[in-house]
Amino acid sequence: MKAHVYVTLKTSVLDPQGQTIQNALHKIGFAQVDAVRQGKYFTLSLAPGLTAEAARDQVERIARDVLTNPVIEEYTYCLED
Amino acid sequence: MKAHVYVTLKTSVLDPQGQTIQNALHKIGFAQVDAVRQGKYFTLSLAPGLTAEAARDQVERIARDVLTNPVIEEYTYCLED
Repeated sequence: MKAHVYVTLKTSVLDPQGQTIQNALHKIGFAQVDAVRQGKYFTLSLAPGLTAEAARDQVERIARDVLTNPVIEEYTYCLED
Repeated sequence: MKAHVYVTLKTSVLDPQGQTIQNALHKIGFAQVDAVRQGKYFTLSLAPGLTAEAARDQVERIARDVLTNPVIEEYTYCLED
């Protein structure tokens, strides 16, 4: 089973890296990009035999406690068989 | 319209950062995580009025030419209204 975890900056937090990418895109002609936000993406491979419920519980705890800084970031995740 | 772009290391490329996260997870008790791979995640906000086809074309070129290092990375993306 695999889990995909997406960690992004909260919308209230400035994203200078995304802003820099947007500026670069404008300079090379992609004027229709209004904003860019950058985040992190993790793929976790889980041991076979975990139930969906146990997997969800583990991934939730890993995303919340390890992969995300709750002061400035938020996360979403999805599971895939 | 929004585009979500996911950039990951090719599976043939070692991911020491993901390996470090996996080791850390094992040390704190998440023994059922067999592997971790880390990638980048971008959200692009596109100007209203772009057709779906034009948006797809722009995002494809941005992902391929700007956001991805084709030697070691690959990308996927999806569009959202």
